[in-house]
Amino acid sequence: MKLIDGKQTAQDLKKDIAVEVADFIRQYGRRPHLAAVLVGEDPASQTYVRNKEKDCKEVGMDSSLYKFPDTITREELISCVQTINDDPEIDGLIVQLPLPDHLDAQEIIETIDPSKDVDGFHPVNVGRMVLGLPSFVSATPAGIADLLEYYKIPTQGKECVIIGRSNIVGKPLANLLSQKGPGGDCTVTLCHSRTKELDKICRRADILIAALGRPGFLKANMVKEGAVVIDVGISRVEDKNTKSGFRLAGDVDFEQVAPRCSYITPVPGGVGPMTRVSLLKNTLKAALKHIK
Amino acid sequence: MKLIDGKQTAQDLKKDIAVEVADFIRQYGRRPHLAAVLVGEDPASQTYVRNKEKDCKEVGMDSSLYKFPDTITREELISCVQTINDDPEIDGLIVQLPLPDHLDAQEIIETIDPSKDVDGFHPVNVGRMVLGLPSFVSATPAGIADLLEYYKIPTQGKECVIIGRSNIVGKPLANLLSQKGPGGDCTVTLCHSRTKELDKICRRADILIAALGRPGFLKANMVKEGAVVIDVGISRVEDKNTKSGFRLAGDVDFEQVAPRCSYITPVPGGVGPMTRVSLLKNTLKAALKHIK
Repeated sequence: MKLIDGKQTAQDLKKDIAVEVADFIRQYGRRPHLAAVLVGEDPASQTYVRNKEKDCKEVGMDSSLYKFPDTITREELISCVQTINDDPEIDGLIVQLPLPDHLDAQEIIETIDPSKDVDGFHPVNVGRMVLGLPSFVSATPAGIADLLEYYKIPTQGKECVIIGRSNIVGKPLANLLSQKGPGGDCTVTLCHSRTKELDKICRRADILIAALGRPGFLKANMVKEGAVVIDVGISRVEDKNTKSGFRLAGDVDFEQVAPRCSYITPVPGGVGPMTRVSLLKNTLKAALKHIK
Repeated sequence: MKLIDGKQTAQDLKKDIAVEVADFIRQYGRRPHLAAVLVGEDPASQTYVRNKEKDCKEVGMDSSLYKFPDTITREELISCVQTINDDPEIDGLIVQLPLPDHLDAQEIIETIDPSKDVDGFHPVNVGRMVLGLPSFVSATPAGIADLLEYYKIPTQGKECVIIGRSNIVGKPLANLLSQKGPGGDCTVTLCHSRTKELDKICRRADILIAALGRPGFLKANMVKEGAVVIDVGISRVEDKNTKSGFRLAGDVDFEQVAPRCSYITPVPGGVGPMTRVSLLKNTLKAALKHIK
């Protein structure tokens, strides 16, 4: 069993990105620039946005934060997005989710200029990805694809089973891994709450991806000997033995499952750190596209 | 074994559409209107477009044909699409494919106003469908979903195997059938040229959909007893016993496979007629949306 070290991989990839960013600056005389829109005071969202700013700095990109109280109106938020859309100095734009209940997240996302939609949430980017056209792939699916590539795990002709059909992980990932070409060509089965005999289906998988958000869900009897297991889940579970009173848990019962795997991602330190790298890659890609 | 009669189903659904169209006209004082753009002299394309016009007439819709020689420039064609986009009298717009080589079909499709894209080929519509948002679903996947519904074939929790990952059938169909809700909730596996042990995977299917475009490809040993088999293929094969010298053949070896099935679609007369109904449904939907 080999542990897939997402933290280390992310560090390595960030170094590559930093080199590309330095090239970009030399060639075009400015830094790629990511703008984040943050509404309200959700502590987790604040941390995510802070980390994204830190990542930008680390690879030499500019970032800016548009921060609003959760009383912001729909019109004000849309107007802010449009201002950023029109700003030629800004390459990428993310709206940190979730938004307060009075705002329609889907509507706001569809206001983002698809060429700046580095989260890859705009339907145009989802559609272009499905159709195999150049697009921004959302952070988690792209991060998983990068991990598989980094560890030289073959995908062509492999049976891949994905548990969970969310719009930000399961569905785009199923489409991404079944695309024609390198890093794709998997035979993908997408499973969900209505799937019958899930255990049996999971045992078919050469590459098994758990993205349903239920801590410790995937047990050893659901995993074929030698499978690659990717754990996308990240939940807080109570743990009296820690100072904080909780710990982070993935969807995989790691202790049970790990001995059966050829490769497995831990939680934390697996898929998580890779998602932040995807955002940087997309922002650099957006900047290059805007130059052209 | 029960034969799924696409021709009859299409007729029945067209009657329902005609009633809805009559309601529309009574309420809004105009007919839903489909515009087709046809470039060049391809005989098959000419037939398709003629049939679409005939269908419109049959259900009480208006149609118009924008016909161009294959010397039309990219700029002229885009300008035509934009004129139709801006015409408030036209609800739906299709550009008949294939286009001559000097035109980029994808670029032209992306010029169509997504709210008039009744073929459902624009990335925004593909993306919205994948995300489970209201959208225009392309004709073949929508037609297959309608057939399953019409014959009350349950999909929830069923294993569905799709052979072929084309942008107009396999990929959108895989996404459609795995969506949450009625007519969806299948556990879908998408197979393609790189899939290994295809026979074995096909035998898992409760619903097996052949959409690879190879006449007679699907044999009895690939089909589980009692499966529902949907044949999307439609190829011309030589046949000296017919007057024309050819016959239409599906991807399924019908003689062999039919006895094993609970339901099966014939070719011709299965999926084919349903695709034309989908276009009418989408045009009516577009008209209702434009009114609102």
